[in-house]
Amino acid sequence: MSRPVALSEAHVLEALAALDLWELVPARPAIRRTYVFENFIEAFGFMTRVAMVAESLDHHPEWSNVYNRVEVVLTTHDAGGVTALDLTLARRMDAFAQNASRRSDA
Amino acid sequence: MSRPVALSEAHVLEALAALDLWELVPARPAIRRTYVFENFIEAFGFMTRVAMVAESLDHHPEWSNVYNRVEVVLTTHDAGGVTALDLTLARRMDAFAQNASRRSDA
Amino acid sequence: MSRPVALSEAHVLEALAALDLWELVPARPAIRRTYVFENFIEAFGFMTRVAMVAESLDHHPEWSNVYNRVEVVLTTHDAGGVTALDLTLARRMDAFAQNASRRSDA
Amino acid sequence: MSRPVALSEAHVLEALAALDLWELVPARPAIRRTYVFENFIEAFGFMTRVAMVAESLDHHPEWSNVYNRVEVVLTTHDAGGVTALDLTLARRMDAFAQNASRRSDA
Repeated sequence: MSRPVALSEAHVLEALAALDLWELVPARPAIRRTYVFENFIEAFGFMTRVAMVAESLDHHPEWSNVYNRVEVVLTTHDAGGVTALDLTLARRMDAFAQNASRRSDA
Repeated sequence: MSRPVALSEAHVLEALAALDLWELVPARPAIRRTYVFENFIEAFGFMTRVAMVAESLDHHPEWSNVYNRVEVVLTTHDAGGVTALDLTLARRMDAFAQNASRRSDA
Repeated sequence: MSRPVALSEAHVLEALAALDLWELVPARPAIRRTYVFENFIEAFGFMTRVAMVAESLDHHPEWSNVYNRVEVVLTTHDAGGVTALDLTLARRMDAFAQNASRRSDA
Repeated sequence: MSRPVALSEAHVLEALAALDLWELVPARPAIRRTYVFENFIEAFGFMTRVAMVAESLDHHPEWSNVYNRVEVVLTTHDAGGVTALDLTLARRMDAFAQNASRRSDA
């Protein structure tokens, strides 16, 4: 398929309005969110489901994990910015997180 | 820890009364359940969470997967029957399955 | 992409000649192999890598796992037989299994 | 089991001599290593095997992943430093990484 093109910041901000808890990364053209789960098992179960989607899309997150926390940064290196692929992956991640045991504060 | 001992069939049946959709396997001292998820990703996400618990308990399921279905058989080979370990693992599996997208018929 | 077509049994047998340890399933148009790993962690690590490929191909195995053993059956239901997709997935699985700790008898 | 105690820096350095490519983190009492694999599937397959061990040990890494790279930091928060648990987990991780397809530069 054709590679996605970077969206304008205005377009990204508009998309983020419908992506609760996602925000622009200050210093670079990327979006980020932190997920907090009940424990490590839930966090890694989430990551495994995301991994299968990421591989299918051939579009992978930058992410880190400490116990029950998963911090995700999404950007499309080839396009030099946030693209429709990032928004797709963000929406899939949010759907997975809703089907996991989460802490009430996240 | 000390190895668990096989429970009597009466004890297992009593425990199954609180484990919805689990049943005795006809030909051997084991219990089984089939889970049906929304798709492969949910099924394998479930299996990954179970895998971490199974490894922690050093007690592993016999299980098979075809797309969105996961069939599980639990028994404790060392004890020659169903033990408290199997019931623990069954309860953990059920809790994970509740935090996954499932088909309405399962 | 266009869906694959079932290969003739002669064609499948020819392909199996290059797929060590895979064989035809007697009663149905499918191929199978059993992998034996060092332990459960290696077996499930193998399954996780396969899961990402399976989801990417939108082609999933029938498989079962008991501790360090993984039994795999591949067929393409839509095509009513073994197709090029099954051979692709079999080759990927074999490559993953070579990068895992395996028992010497498998 | 009893909780581990923090090792002295001299003890940690001695242990690191046998843990190739691991190093002390400059600003905190922790050790770190970066693994580079062939691709995302190998990186995440590695992480899945580590996850099962981490959960079994009830000792989890701080780690981040970008495509084929996995950066790991190990420390024992309860003990305020590097403990025998961290060295155990580091050794298990190294063993898993040897059974994965890796880039030649890592």
